[in-house]
Amino acid sequence: MRKYFAEFIGTFMLVFIGTGTVTVAKGGTLAIGLAFGLAITMMAYAVGGVSGGNFNPAVSIAMLINGRLSASDTIFYIISQFLGATVASAVLYFFEHALSLPKSVGFGQTDFPKISAGAAFCFETIITFLFVFVILMVTSEKFGNATMAPVAIGLTLAFLIIVALNLTGGSLNPARSFGPAIFAGGTALSHYWVYLIAPVLGAAIAAFVGRWMGSED
Amino acid sequence: MRKYFAEFIGTFMLVFIGTGTVTVAKGGTLAIGLAFGLAITMMAYAVGGVSGGNFNPAVSIAMLINGRLSASDTIFYIISQFLGATVASAVLYFFEHALSLPKSVGFGQTDFPKISAGAAFCFETIITFLFVFVILMVTSEKFGNATMAPVAIGLTLAFLIIVALNLTGGSLNPARSFGPAIFAGGTALSHYWVYLIAPVLGAAIAAFVGRWMGSED
Amino acid sequence: MRKYFAEFIGTFMLVFIGTGTVTVAKGGTLAIGLAFGLAITMMAYAVGGVSGGNFNPAVSIAMLINGRLSASDTIFYIISQFLGATVASAVLYFFEHALSLPKSVGFGQTDFPKISAGAAFCFETIITFLFVFVILMVTSEKFGNATMAPVAIGLTLAFLIIVALNLTGGSLNPARSFGPAIFAGGTALSHYWVYLIAPVLGAAIAAFVGRWMGSED
Amino acid sequence: MRKYFAEFIGTFMLVFIGTGTVTVAKGGTLAIGLAFGLAITMMAYAVGGVSGGNFNPAVSIAMLINGRLSASDTIFYIISQFLGATVASAVLYFFEHALSLPKSVGFGQTDFPKISAGAAFCFETIITFLFVFVILMVTSEKFGNATMAPVAIGLTLAFLIIVALNLTGGSLNPARSFGPAIFAGGTALSHYWVYLIAPVLGAAIAAFVGRWMGSED
Repeated sequence: MRKYFAEFIGTFMLVFIGTGTVTVAKGGTLAIGLAFGLAITMMAYAVGGVSGGNFNPAVSIAMLINGRLSASDTIFYIISQFLGATVASAVLYFFEHALSLPKSVGFGQTDFPKISAGAAFCFETIITFLFVFVILMVTSEKFGNATMAPVAIGLTLAFLIIVALNLTGGSLNPARSFGPAIFAGGTALSHYWVYLIAPVLGAAIAAFVGRWMGSED
Repeated sequence: MRKYFAEFIGTFMLVFIGTGTVTVAKGGTLAIGLAFGLAITMMAYAVGGVSGGNFNPAVSIAMLINGRLSASDTIFYIISQFLGATVASAVLYFFEHALSLPKSVGFGQTDFPKISAGAAFCFETIITFLFVFVILMVTSEKFGNATMAPVAIGLTLAFLIIVALNLTGGSLNPARSFGPAIFAGGTALSHYWVYLIAPVLGAAIAAFVGRWMGSED
Repeated sequence: MRKYFAEFIGTFMLVFIGTGTVTVAKGGTLAIGLAFGLAITMMAYAVGGVSGGNFNPAVSIAMLINGRLSASDTIFYIISQFLGATVASAVLYFFEHALSLPKSVGFGQTDFPKISAGAAFCFETIITFLFVFVILMVTSEKFGNATMAPVAIGLTLAFLIIVALNLTGGSLNPARSFGPAIFAGGTALSHYWVYLIAPVLGAAIAAFVGRWMGSED
Repeated sequence: MRKYFAEFIGTFMLVFIGTGTVTVAKGGTLAIGLAFGLAITMMAYAVGGVSGGNFNPAVSIAMLINGRLSASDTIFYIISQFLGATVASAVLYFFEHALSLPKSVGFGQTDFPKISAGAAFCFETIITFLFVFVILMVTSEKFGNATMAPVAIGLTLAFLIIVALNLTGGSLNPARSFGPAIFAGGTALSHYWVYLIAPVLGAAIAAFVGRWMGSED
């Protein structure tokens, strides 16, 4: 149970701090990227020793492919991650309501109003590939660095999201996009399939490339 | 005496750098959050080895509940923390006066002009729970990381404050809110009870949840 | 092959995140500097154990001069770095096109519209000297710090680029300037010789000064 | 000789990156503070193993008082630091001239146009006390953390400077203020005595308080 709670609260923090910086705090580009990325850093230090600190279904699937996570744990991790993201969006919904924020502020949902679904799909696949490749390498026994891995992972997520903000919003994570999409509805929900499938595809490619690079040596 | 001075100067630095960035420096959202959070990081590295680096009555009470701090040390830690915060606000008061800052700049006090006291109370309880939960885990023997704990703790405080700025100002710390409230008066003082009780409640919940997660194993 | 792929993907990430923050994200000064610098940090943690994490022909030449890299590896590293930078620019070109960004946004190319070629050459030589000197020292056996070297290197690049942005754009890296120059053309291409030769000169000086300071002891 | 060059190039980097971010880069509050602070971080990692990484006459005097530095080294360190700061200002002077920056941009000099000399003196004394106290503790054998000390020191300088920018410009370092003052002249030069004496006084107090706290145990 402890490890599932670890995945729940880590993903909660990612969505709470990340989308909270977008909506309640109206943060700038750098603040938003760092909020999402460093939320992973802090929670990987806090509960990474309990669950491994995935906080992302795409990451858990890459770990399953490379034999670092059992099939049953993968399922319960993913359920915990979706629950954490959804509860975080619900909590923020309550406080956004208390603030009487205008509807246009939204819920930090991910969407791609300026590009095609195909381009968005490609972009999310590429950046999730890069992200999960970094994760697999910095947490590998042979090439990794246990002390600094959470910093490297958090910075990678932060700056990939910064590049992505104007293209796809920078999800890289099916759970992170699910929570806000429920509350935002509209195209955030009808476009959700991109954020469900593309990160998993990118993570799967990263699992194979990472293994070839020695991440499982 | 050394450990009480450590708590005094650590809390002094938190309020001096944090509220100084709000008032004297007129910093942006990211600068303000990082100022408060990284003040904890630097002082935890500097004097954490002397006192444990609490710098926050709510944290000390969580440490007391989980048996990491004695009752008498808890009392003297809290006194030192309130003294540190108050002296920092007094020093900044002097230099804000020297700068002839307009009264509207204030003293970096925490308040909730846009939401109800109940919502503010809930929010401060939630974010202090998250903050103290991270502290207990990253400083735990089994799951912690002594080298990087101050970084993880500081980043957690930084981004929880960023999300909180427009809601409650982001206190998470009865001492941090006390110093500026004395000089600001008004609703910062009459609303102070929220910042006194909610963080302690959040920290107490974190103590129990943390213990269940293995923070004291 | 693994080490050449490491250099390829590291340089890809540098240009993808760095120039992507300039163009797609329209980041501010601090965000741009940190994007380039911390891209090196994350990739040095991810694949530094495979290839040494140069991601820069000037760095590889300094490593060759100081006997840390063989002549044949230097050649293949440099080819991989140029390929990585060019592929990153091609990928960003595609997504900038998808966004219909105006031509004036450019491709994050380096140029010196406000100063002479001589001044630009001097500046790039100085900052690359400083950058490579730091690299050689923090990765040295006697004076270095393996755990934190990627952080020190990334921060050095970040802030040297911040100072350089209005002068030369802050390249310090022949591969980083090559990718965007192909797509931007114009003076970014005709001025490219500055970004090809000056960083190599600065790196060569750093190799000798570093050796004198004990970087190879 | 190596250790004197270490102090020279470390102080060069502090002034080059710090004042260059103020003038050439026109950075914001957060960028300026981080530039000065993290310049210390990167150079402490690079050459701290050679010289101890003082880069500041006030720090060297505190080290002398607490018996960590010999009298002759203190003298040569201070000379090297003043030389490094002055050469950095000369180099930046050349490139500011190449950019044809308006005179009002200045040279990143420190001054106190809004407060009295007495208030400025007090403020520089307080912040240098806090800064040197942190340095002595994080580099102490008993309570320090050799891996992370440069990060803690750099962040402390960064945020103390951010608070100080509108009061005194945030020097904490007689050498850092000397270089730009020569080129700026005017009140930056006639007020220089504040930046010469106050940091040394603050550092001396820190030496005694640090020793009492166990920095030399």
